[in-house]
Amino acid sequence: MLMGQPIAIAIHGGAGNIRPENLPPDRAQKVEAYMREVVEEAYLLLQQGRMAIEVVEVAVRRLEDAGYFNAGTGAVPNERGEVELDAAIMDGHTRRAGAVAAVRQVRNPITLARYVMERTSHVLIVGAGADSLAQLWNLPLRNGIETPSEVPWSYGTVGAVALDKHGNLAAATSTGGIMHKKAGRVGDTPLIGAGTYAENGVVAVSATGQGEYFIRSVLAYDIAARIRYAKQPLREAVLQAFAERLEPIGGQGGVIALSPAGEVFLHFNTPGMYRAAINASGHRIVGIFR
Amino acid sequence: MLMGQPIAIAIHGGAGNIRPENLPPDRAQKVEAYMREVVEEAYLLLQQGRMAIEVVEVAVRRLEDAGYFNAGTGAVPNERGEVELDAAIMDGHTRRAGAVAAVRQVRNPITLARYVMERTSHVLIVGAGADSLAQLWNLPLRNGIETPSEVPWSYGTVGAVALDKHGNLAAATSTGGIMHKKAGRVGDTPLIGAGTYAENGVVAVSATGQGEYFIRSVLAYDIAARIRYAKQPLREAVLQAFAERLEPIGGQGGVIALSPAGEVFLHFNTPGMYRAAINASGHRIVGIFR
Repeated sequence: MLMGQPIAIAIHGGAGNIRPENLPPDRAQKVEAYMREVVEEAYLLLQQGRMAIEVVEVAVRRLEDAGYFNAGTGAVPNERGEVELDAAIMDGHTRRAGAVAAVRQVRNPITLARYVMERTSHVLIVGAGADSLAQLWNLPLRNGIETPSEVPWSYGTVGAVALDKHGNLAAATSTGGIMHKKAGRVGDTPLIGAGTYAENGVVAVSATGQGEYFIRSVLAYDIAARIRYAKQPLREAVLQAFAERLEPIGGQGGVIALSPAGEVFLHFNTPGMYRAAINASGHRIVGIFR
Repeated sequence: MLMGQPIAIAIHGGAGNIRPENLPPDRAQKVEAYMREVVEEAYLLLQQGRMAIEVVEVAVRRLEDAGYFNAGTGAVPNERGEVELDAAIMDGHTRRAGAVAAVRQVRNPITLARYVMERTSHVLIVGAGADSLAQLWNLPLRNGIETPSEVPWSYGTVGAVALDKHGNLAAATSTGGIMHKKAGRVGDTPLIGAGTYAENGVVAVSATGQGEYFIRSVLAYDIAARIRYAKQPLREAVLQAFAERLEPIGGQGGVIALSPAGEVFLHFNTPGMYRAAINASGHRIVGIFR
């Protein structure tokens, strides 16, 4: 790795009550292999000089399409048996962001979120208004995707953070929300500063867990603010954000966080979090359980 | 005023291109008189020992019902000629919060937001799902409210921040969004940490302006983070949040902010902001223009 051009990628597939006793070993192996594939592909793109914003979109789209996670194809239904999807993407270079919530028709909410960022003057578009933009822009729809049954390993959100050769950070997150949620419920995923945040020179964060607690803690931006204003290093910023903001109100979940130097820190206070990363030193991590 | 029991209230009715030449004097007088009435009523409730969370809801409901502002009864239509309303409320004592976005049927979105906070395990509910809760809970609907024509004085959002006798801070914000917005567009108003934030011992903030820039700046929580982590006083925190976060990306608007000691700071970088306040010393302010 050339000095001064660090690259790094981290992804997650959700945090929750994921334990060896409720995840069959062959399933765990398949999911780990899939995550390994996604980070290796993303890393290759970064090596080729592609932009972080593009790489996090590609990585999250792959996770949405996997069917293993509660996002995109694998999303769980709400109380009415309908799937409602949320996603956000943020470019740390410009602090531009795009997000969608409670969309039903689009196959890849993360791509719709990126289009909202690039093609509109808005950041967040919800419901049928967002679905109609997906049609207008000819994005692939969910037609024919069957809603999966209640799979015990489908716990959460997916997300990615990346650092590209040009020093840009980006973050992207996508989810089907919580099982049997009220129609229209939106969690932290599509809310900039709650579940998703990126800013060059500071941090990129994607969160997963009980979204309401992450919203009330403005968790992703709290990590950024600790780094900016309290000069905390990445690891300390994440740990203290959990200890001082999320946990005192009872929140559970995890984050993937990435520093401008390509340091990766993966943290969760649940039994497990689907996760994989390649840091600036080229060190590989893939894991599910604590 | 007894030491140790400061109370304070501030409200806004939106920031924007509000100038003497585009606001008839009799209209300005009526709006000022209305805002004065709202803060005096709120102050009386605080003197009686009512909770900040209750007082900000009452104040914002009055502003929604006024018809003078782009919220509730006075809301402006989106690109399809439909009204879509957003609101959020946050209790600084518990950091609990409730919010709704893109609702069409409820008369007082701020009350629906409070019910979401108190009656569900969720923070944010959008669209038809939120409207159906308004019906379930028998909240008054908008039936019969005519969408106002494009009134030049209807520029923004409404909001309130309050400090009660018990030391609790609260914030509430409500809006019709931006004129001719895309269907489903959601701004900063209902997003905790962007347009609305309250935390005891730190600050209460309600914002108004070009919501996308406030989202990308996580502006309300940036002010809180400066106070918590950089130990900045209220005024400096607000001014630097504007100068370092909002303005570099081109954002315009205003905030009302309230410290735990009952210090009020009203700030905007637009020609005008509808505003009124009574601080901990009992000092009254009512204004529209710079």
